[in-house]
Amino acid sequence: MNFARRRGRVEEYLVENGFDGMICTNPESIFYLTNAPFLTGSAGKALYISKEGKASLVVSSLDYEEAFDRSEGTEIVKMEMGEKLFERLRRVSGGADKVGFEDGFLTVRAYDALKKNFNLASVGRLIEKMREVKEPEELKNIEGAVGASDRAVTKTLSNLRNGMTEIEAASEIEYHMRREGGEALAFETIVASGPRAAYPHGMPSGKRASGGEAVVFDFGVKVSGYCSDTTRTFFFGQPRDEMVKVYDIVLEAQEAAISSARPGITGKELDGVARSVIEGHGYGKYFVHGTGHGVGIAVHEGPSVNASNNEPLVPGNVVTIEPGIYIPKVGGVRIEDVIVITEDGSRDLTKFRKDKMVI
Amino acid sequence: MNFARRRGRVEEYLVENGFDGMICTNPESIFYLTNAPFLTGSAGKALYISKEGKASLVVSSLDYEEAFDRSEGTEIVKMEMGEKLFERLRRVSGGADKVGFEDGFLTVRAYDALKKNFNLASVGRLIEKMREVKEPEELKNIEGAVGASDRAVTKTLSNLRNGMTEIEAASEIEYHMRREGGEALAFETIVASGPRAAYPHGMPSGKRASGGEAVVFDFGVKVSGYCSDTTRTFFFGQPRDEMVKVYDIVLEAQEAAISSARPGITGKELDGVARSVIEGHGYGKYFVHGTGHGVGIAVHEGPSVNASNNEPLVPGNVVTIEPGIYIPKVGGVRIEDVIVITEDGSRDLTKFRKDKMVI
Repeated sequence: MNFARRRGRVEEYLVENGFDGMICTNPESIFYLTNAPFLTGSAGKALYISKEGKASLVVSSLDYEEAFDRSEGTEIVKMEMGEKLFERLRRVSGGADKVGFEDGFLTVRAYDALKKNFNLASVGRLIEKMREVKEPEELKNIEGAVGASDRAVTKTLSNLRNGMTEIEAASEIEYHMRREGGEALAFETIVASGPRAAYPHGMPSGKRASGGEAVVFDFGVKVSGYCSDTTRTFFFGQPRDEMVKVYDIVLEAQEAAISSARPGITGKELDGVARSVIEGHGYGKYFVHGTGHGVGIAVHEGPSVNASNNEPLVPGNVVTIEPGIYIPKVGGVRIEDVIVITEDGSRDLTKFRKDKMVI
Repeated sequence: MNFARRRGRVEEYLVENGFDGMICTNPESIFYLTNAPFLTGSAGKALYISKEGKASLVVSSLDYEEAFDRSEGTEIVKMEMGEKLFERLRRVSGGADKVGFEDGFLTVRAYDALKKNFNLASVGRLIEKMREVKEPEELKNIEGAVGASDRAVTKTLSNLRNGMTEIEAASEIEYHMRREGGEALAFETIVASGPRAAYPHGMPSGKRASGGEAVVFDFGVKVSGYCSDTTRTFFFGQPRDEMVKVYDIVLEAQEAAISSARPGITGKELDGVARSVIEGHGYGKYFVHGTGHGVGIAVHEGPSVNASNNEPLVPGNVVTIEPGIYIPKVGGVRIEDVIVITEDGSRDLTKFRKDKMVI
C-alpha cells in the first residue's frame, strides 16, 4: 500500500484549508494512513499529521513494539505509563494552532481535552471519503476475505444438521473462516432461525433450527485488515410454502440490484431497484433496512446503498447488496453479496451459490 | 435484572441536577438500562430518559422487532426509513430543554446535530460508574462467561499441536468457546507466539508455533450479554531457560496481586503490587501495560487497575489481573484471571490451571 500517497492527500487538504496539522484517533483511519495495526475497539493511540508531511503516531508502551515494526514512514512516539495522550500531542505537534479532527469519531470528552491545547476544526469526512474508493491492493485484500468466507461456508454446509442449535451452527462457520486464513471475525456472526430470523440482527442462541425453518447466516472475516460480509439463508428441513416464495423474491431483488450497480447510479437509486422488486410482490413493508453499505477496513463504512445517499457510486466503491424480508413472528430471509463498482458496471466478489439449500 | 431500578437512579440524578432528561447513544448503556440487545459496533439507536421516569428507545425499523420483544419497561419508537434519529428525539422528548449526554461516547458529529434541538450538558461518568458495581445477576452472567472460557480452554488443550499456526490455534479456542454456549466472542482473540508474543495485542497470523516458544492466548466470550477475559501462556515444545524464569515471575506477580485485591485498595496500589514483584526480579521495563481493567457488558470498562486510578476498589467491582513481561524480539508471557471484589477480599472467577503447560 502507498501510505505516503494517502498522507500526501491529507497534507494537500491541510495546506489548502489553512490547517497546521490534523489529529486522527480512529484506529481504522490510523491503520489506513500508517499500516499500524489495531484491535477492534482499541483506543489510546493518536496520529498527528503536519501540513509539512510529517506523521507521528503516539502510542502507549503496550502498543509500541508492534506499531514500530509494522508502520510505514511514521515516527512512533512512546508515551510513558501514566502520561496523558493529549498532553503528549501538544509536544508532538510542535506548537501547532489550527488542527483538524474527525468529527464522526472523536468523542466529546476527547474534544474537550484536546481543545485546551489546540484550535480545533473538523475535517469532515475527509478520510472516510478517501477510504470509500478502494485501491487495487485493498480490493485484493477484500477479495481474499470474501474468498475465505466462500470456502468456509462451502465446508460448513456438510457440518450443518437439522436440529442443531444456532450457536452450534455459528461455531462451524466461524471455525472454517479461521481455518481459511481469517485473522479475526469481521463482526459478530448472526445465525437466526425460524421466528428469530425476523430479527435482522439476531445473535445466535441455544434455539434449535429444524422443521423447515429459514435460517439466516450473516458472517464475515478479516484478511490483511480488510473485511468480508456474506449472508445466506438455508432451510433446515423442507421449507413451508411462504418462505420458499419469500426466498425467490429476495433473490430476484438481490440479482436485480447487482445487475443495476454501475458508476453514476446513486445509493438511493440502487436501493430503489431492490425495493421495487420486493414492493412489487407486496412485501415492501417487511424490507426494513437499506439495501447495503460500504465494506473495507470497517465492515460498515461508506458509501451507503439506501434512501439517504443521493451521491453517485464511483469505480472502486465496494458495497454489500443485501435485501431481506422479515415477517414478525414468522421468519426472515436475507441474501448478501459484496460487489465492487467497476468502470462499466460491477463485479460480484461473492461466489458462493444462491439457490435454495435444504439442510 | 431490575432495569427500572437502574433507570430510577438516573432519574434521581436528573432531578437533583436540574436536567429535563438524558440521551444515551452508547449501545452498551442502552442494554444496561433497557435490556434491548445490540451488536458490537452497532449504532442508530438512542434512549431518552425523562426526569419523570419515562424511557423511550428510538430505533430504526431494522431493530424494532427485537427491541420490542426484549426490552423491559421501555417505549419502543420506530423511525421511518430516511428519518433522522436526532430529529425524532426532539419529538420524543416532548420539548425538553436541558438534556444530559455521555461525553465519553457521543461523537462531536452527533453532538453538533443534537445541540440544534437541546441545551446539552454532560452527565459525566454517571452510567459508567453505575456499571462498575455489578449486581448479583450480572456477576452470575460474568461467571457464566468465564466458566465457558474455562471449559473451552480445557478442551482446546488436547487439540493444540506443536507446529500449528497461530490462526489454527485461535480457531480451536474460539470453536470451543462457542460450543460451551458463547453468544459471541467478547473481543478479537489474541494468539501470539515466540517473538510475536512480545506484542501484547498480537493478532493471530500464519506463523507456526514450535521450538519451545511461549505462546500467549488471550480470549473471551459473551454469555447473556456479559464478557469473559482470560489469558494463558503455553509452551509449544520444551521451553528455553529464560522464558521459564519469566513465566514464574509473571505468575508470582499475578498471584500476589490477586491476594492483595480487597475493598479499599486503589487501582494504582493494586497495580503496584504486581509491578513491584516484576521490578524486584529486574524485568520492570518489560511490563509495558497496566495490571488490569474492569469487565462487564464491555470487555474494557471501569475500574482500571493501573497507575492512573487513585480511587479505592469496592465490593462488586469485577477486574482482570493480567501482568505480563514482553522482551522485544524474544518473547512474552501474560497470565490473566477475572476477579470480583468481595466484602472482605476477592474471589477468583477463573478456575483454569496456571502451572506451566508444554504442548
